[in-house]
Amino acid sequence: MARCIRCGRRAVVRLRYARASFCREHFLEYVEDRVRKTVERFGMLRGGDRVLVAVSGGKDSLALLRILSGFEGIEVVPLFIDLGISGYSEECLRACEELCEELGLELQVYDLESRHGFTVDDLARLEPKLGRPVCSSCGLVKRYVLNEAALELEATCLATGHTLDDESAYTLHNVLTGNVDQLLRGGPVLEGRHPKLVRKVKPLYEVSTFETGEYCRLSGVKPVSAECPYRVEKVLRLKELLGHVEEVRPGVRLGFMRFYLKRLKPALAEAYGSKVGEAGSCRLCGFPTSREVCSFCRLKERVLELLGGSRRA
Amino acid sequence: MARCIRCGRRAVVRLRYARASFCREHFLEYVEDRVRKTVERFGMLRGGDRVLVAVSGGKDSLALLRILSGFEGIEVVPLFIDLGISGYSEECLRACEELCEELGLELQVYDLESRHGFTVDDLARLEPKLGRPVCSSCGLVKRYVLNEAALELEATCLATGHTLDDESAYTLHNVLTGNVDQLLRGGPVLEGRHPKLVRKVKPLYEVSTFETGEYCRLSGVKPVSAECPYRVEKVLRLKELLGHVEEVRPGVRLGFMRFYLKRLKPALAEAYGSKVGEAGSCRLCGFPTSREVCSFCRLKERVLELLGGSRRA
Repeated sequence: MARCIRCGRRAVVRLRYARASFCREHFLEYVEDRVRKTVERFGMLRGGDRVLVAVSGGKDSLALLRILSGFEGIEVVPLFIDLGISGYSEECLRACEELCEELGLELQVYDLESRHGFTVDDLARLEPKLGRPVCSSCGLVKRYVLNEAALELEATCLATGHTLDDESAYTLHNVLTGNVDQLLRGGPVLEGRHPKLVRKVKPLYEVSTFETGEYCRLSGVKPVSAECPYRVEKVLRLKELLGHVEEVRPGVRLGFMRFYLKRLKPALAEAYGSKVGEAGSCRLCGFPTSREVCSFCRLKERVLELLGGSRRA
Repeated sequence: MARCIRCGRRAVVRLRYARASFCREHFLEYVEDRVRKTVERFGMLRGGDRVLVAVSGGKDSLALLRILSGFEGIEVVPLFIDLGISGYSEECLRACEELCEELGLELQVYDLESRHGFTVDDLARLEPKLGRPVCSSCGLVKRYVLNEAALELEATCLATGHTLDDESAYTLHNVLTGNVDQLLRGGPVLEGRHPKLVRKVKPLYEVSTFETGEYCRLSGVKPVSAECPYRVEKVLRLKELLGHVEEVRPGVRLGFMRFYLKRLKPALAEAYGSKVGEAGSCRLCGFPTSREVCSFCRLKERVLELLGGSRRA
């Protein structure tokens, strides 16, 4: 292993895209600086922001929490959603609690079942009847309740642990499938375009999961080791494919995302207009939707109906 | 194997993206129709065109020649460039000759060495001194001499065997690396923007190499079996990567290329202007170039210098 480019001590991490090696201390500093620069460049946070940080127990969101907790001028509120996945959610919660204790932060726990009357275990069991893969339902539920919790906790913004790996694979997917709407909507900051929609930011937009993994390892953060029992191998493994390309061409994902944000998205917006129209409000919950009843309320209604109302909250 | 969707006979080819199976006869017809439609949609050929068809001996270009030779209203002129790759070029020539004989076409042979005083074997041997990978030099040489031959043979257009696999990988490469210039220049038809530049067309733009391979096999065309001795494994194997994506999502490449042509390229052109400026003329050969002396003449000059002028034509 080479020497740290900042202090000359023995390096413990090599980043090929950056053509640099780092000792433990300077690697942590490097990642923190990178996130700080991303946050500044995209104007993600404003002084006085009360930032709800969604933590799942995984390495990305725990690294995010640890990094943001070191930022001055903002208030960090960690939030865990207990999805009710037996044997797994408990372990995830423990990982989040451990880090919050270390950081001296009070973890907010949002219990899906007590709030809405169902769990992700229910979504999995009812999958055939719902006609929707459990991962897809779970994603919908998380997006909804994160926003709901952010409003309740009076957060001014919601930060999630989406990394460069996630975002580049998502963008590539939208390019390959020609999804202009999603290409226009994507990006590191999603402004709340509705009174009940909190601004969402992705401070790890330019940080890879390799880096979050190393950040956790070297800062002593212990992410959950178990995998979600409902995890399925993605059929279209663009993340892995881009990972292979990255190995051969270090930095390709970063370059691709910069091209997307600086040139591709603006060109598409100019040509096809900002397709992101004004959102209406759901008749049941008042949250933004383009239909009469939002997807979450429709899913919830169907699930509670199938559960026979026995566990209705 | 299923039944042919056109006649109900036993099928011999299944195309997943088209959700269809075909017997031998109807598969050949299907591919020919597809090429015909591509040619029409993009206005590639005009009645009375004298089309120089570049054949290498490989399955793509031989399939192209066989298909175009069945088109009415155009004159097809097959051209083989003898690159002087010992042991290989001879075999390639033989494969081309065999098909031309069957089709009753006279094969034009352009001998690189007798025309320009060097071979691709020379380019390979001089690779370290030229500081340019032989595949890259060879590509430059082929582009140049194909155009040169087209002018000499008074062809009104030049058709090459670039397939959907080639074009989608090339386009993806340009998207990932953010190469706006190449994205603006790409497409199935390249109009000659200079008096000494012949219009180039890619009739196999929407046909995969799987299809050209099956087309050759089922029509009795025998492509060269040997591989070019200078072939190197591409480091950035986007063609293979897209092939994997295609297996999971049949039709993804076709959809991607339609998105590129219909929405992406126009949007980029609108935003960044057609960067494809007017080309100047090479001081030495008069062919188009953006510099004083074109890349081909510069390469040739250097090669002949290194060869000591002994074999100067």
